Amino acid sequence: MTSAAADRAPDAGGDDRARGAGGGFDDATAVRTVEPGRFAADVHPGWSIAGRTNGGYLLALMARAALKQEDGRSLPAGRRPAPVAATASYLSPTPPGPVVLTVTTLRRGRTSGVHRVELHDRDGERRAEALVTLGALHEEATAHFDGVEPVDLPPLEDCVRLTVNGPGFTVPLMQMVAQHLDPACAGWLHGEPSSGGELRGWLALADGRDSDPLSLLLAIDALPPATFDLGLGGWVPTLQLSAWVRAVPASGPLRVRQRARLVEDGMVDETCDVWDGRGRLVASGHQLAGIRMPRRG
Amino acid sequence: MTSAAADRAPDAGGDDRARGAGGGFDDATAVRTVEPGRFAADVHPGWSIAGRTNGGYLLALMARAALKQEDGRSLPAGRRPAPVAATASYLSPTPPGPVVLTVTTLRRGRTSGVHRVELHDRDGERRAEALVTLGALHEEATAHFDGVEPVDLPPLEDCVRLTVNGPGFTVPLMQMVAQHLDPACAGWLHGEPSSGGELRGWLALADGRDSDPLSLLLAIDALPPATFDLGLGGWVPTLQLSAWVRAVPASGPLRVRQRARLVEDGMVDETCDVWDGRGRLVASGHQLAGIRMPRRG
Repeated sequence: MTSAAADRAPDAGGDDRARGAGGGFDDATAVRTVEPGRFAADVHPGWSIAGRTNGGYLLALMARAALKQEDGRSLPAGRRPAPVAATASYLSPTPPGPVVLTVTTLRRGRTSGVHRVELHDRDGERRAEALVTLGALHEEATAHFDGVEPVDLPPLEDCVRLTVNGPGFTVPLMQMVAQHLDPACAGWLHGEPSSGGELRGWLALADGRDSDPLSLLLAIDALPPATFDLGLGGWVPTLQLSAWVRAVPASGPLRVRQRARLVEDGMVDETCDVWDGRGRLVASGHQLAGIRMPRRG
Repeated sequence: MTSAAADRAPDAGGDDRARGAGGGFDDATAVRTVEPGRFAADVHPGWSIAGRTNGGYLLALMARAALKQEDGRSLPAGRRPAPVAATASYLSPTPPGPVVLTVTTLRRGRTSGVHRVELHDRDGERRAEALVTLGALHEEATAHFDGVEPVDLPPLEDCVRLTVNGPGFTVPLMQMVAQHLDPACAGWLHGEPSSGGELRGWLALADGRDSDPLSLLLAIDALPPATFDLGLGGWVPTLQLSAWVRAVPASGPLRVRQRARLVEDGMVDETCDVWDGRGRLVASGHQLAGIRMPRRG
């Protein structure tokens, strides 16, 4: 199991890896301290879909700034720092390139803290804002009650690997995150959606890095929109995305299920659940997104 | 159907009804403009559980300040202003009494806007912060896809009305919100939880006011914690609460279902779905809360 990403973040302002476009998750979410409460980072072009930076990746970047703000805090043994609750509002698409992250501590507790994170681009334009609750997860916690229906997946080798060539656009994100869909919900790739409104499959960082609490913020928003399985192929811009990180994941590919809930009035809400290699529910994401729908009546 | 609450808010700073403890929902969420971006309000003692102010009520109060910030904006015919996405972080319990709401507009669009709302108490202490996306719901929208299992309820007259006398504490909120639980999930009231982790029932504002997009923010957090149905009777402080308001509700009591998802490591996440009198899904809430659990292992 890896250590928390925040612990591995290069602290030096001049870290070159963080500037390259080809870096893995740790490089792509590296943040450099400018002054207390103010951090610099680079939005990497690879974590995008049809030219739009992925919302889960941006949420992870913002949470990492909050984790860096709390750097050096000592936690009890057997506990891991984690963004247990993180919600972002996306104000306009964030282009690749330098960004500034401003962290305002709203509450500081003994083992938890709540932070506001503002993301501005190089021109000072506001692109996203998040509320991030940091907590301390027990490494060995077990479920007292699990009311979430588990996902059932075929073996990874029987699943369909998604490629950068999406239906009519390119998805560089698929080079960064290896996604293998259950063939039963992959029909939309050749124009035959199942109409169930659900996508499910295996997910892993392509750089071989194990999942940890931070990267789960990416996992809950990395699958294609579940609306693709409803024959709605259009762009689905996230308005607000909330993630609950519930446990420290074991190593190995994650199981992920993204479900459309209500599609109405130009919007869809989706819930994404993530299980680790041991089959434990480790994170859930809920989002409201805009959607281009066919006109009705 | 009522007009939007924001339209009905008394604008005068000296409105006495808003100061009394006995007012209904409109009075209890009234906000008065102090200066642009700054509003005064009174947290009413009646909207509380065991001395703690309800999180859904506070979310509605914060969203109302955002709606007031946008007062006067003209929307196309047949559209209603609504807090389509609203997430709050609760920093510490908000006591009854005067509060100040500071609204910062993060994005302003033609029919939508995103606002940060900060809530400070009379002593200037920060108690809660929210991200609120305002949109314009079509009055006559219909679902393109509904993937949420509908709730099944006995007739209201066969359900159990919750009273202010909770199990070991008082719940003044039950005087403000009439809640009738399905008897099949009300066993915890006499020490016999069903262990299903689900509470469901009918909900209406006790003052007779119809539901509208604003009051749905209250509806998604008004039921008791679903953990009561798991035999976990302790206090469940909300850390973060997200609401999606999806449709303008028809008049009449709402159907509400609150489900516990994962209970682990001192936290629970819950999802609450709300249907209107016509059986249409009108809102969903997702929250992460702390929970006092029996010690294991």
